[in-house]
Amino acid sequence: MLKRLCAAALCLVVALPLTASADDASDQAAINAIWDSYQTARVAGDAEAWLALWDDDGIQMPPGIPARGKDVLMQGVPKAFAARPATAMEISPEEIVIMGDWAFSRGNYTATVMAGEIASETDGKFMTIFRRQDDGSWRIYRDIFNSNK
Amino acid sequence: MLKRLCAAALCLVVALPLTASADDASDQAAINAIWDSYQTARVAGDAEAWLALWDDDGIQMPPGIPARGKDVLMQGVPKAFAARPATAMEISPEEIVIMGDWAFSRGNYTATVMAGEIASETDGKFMTIFRRQDDGSWRIYRDIFNSNK
Repeated sequence: MLKRLCAAALCLVVALPLTASADDASDQAAINAIWDSYQTARVAGDAEAWLALWDDDGIQMPPGIPARGKDVLMQGVPKAFAARPATAMEISPEEIVIMGDWAFSRGNYTATVMAGEIASETDGKFMTIFRRQDDGSWRIYRDIFNSNK
Repeated sequence: MLKRLCAAALCLVVALPLTASADDASDQAAINAIWDSYQTARVAGDAEAWLALWDDDGIQMPPGIPARGKDVLMQGVPKAFAARPATAMEISPEEIVIMGDWAFSRGNYTATVMAGEIASETDGKFMTIFRRQDDGSWRIYRDIFNSNK
């Protein structure tokens, strides 16, 4: 643990003044790729791919219900994707800010979700916190959204 | 600038393994104090005190309208507080996580807001990002919320 902390600290000493921007750009690209995967998985109805984007301790905060953890998502999302398929989704991040081993993104999204034959259009905004995993990849840690209308 | 970065890096080397928890506790207390001030200012109808809690580049993301910056808040909040006074507000943070010069908080809140004689009760949740200011204090940088019901 001490070795890991010291290695991290030394890395910061060297990296902060020299390569922070380059690191941030690569982290921002990784998070943009998560948004691509998120919308693709939602429209494909691929609950497994969608759930794989979430940190094991992830919490989603949708409108109309209390916050729920990944265990609840794993139970409910496959059924929800099947019952209410999305025919379109577009996530438009306006910010991706890297904060060491944390990051946040904020922006807007649109989605078309079917309930039977009835299409429901959503125009919303979101704010999401990502946590860097031990292997350097990023996952969704906290996510909240609401309507723009 | 280089001097400041080096000083920050050296501080991290020394402080990370030894005093991170103590630092976090004092930062968490400062953010809890912001939540106290937020609910007190809202119920007092004190728009000036409420706006002072926000970073100059702050963005609020309420349900039902697009995201809006502090300039829009400064125009609209004094009128909104006068038109729709709150008789009660309680913010219950479930998390306050310090990420260097950034922090986030997540939790639930209740509020009673008056429209004329009609009281409207809100049971909601929120996620907020704070940015450390040059003087070491914290201000609200991004804030989004929605209903639990």
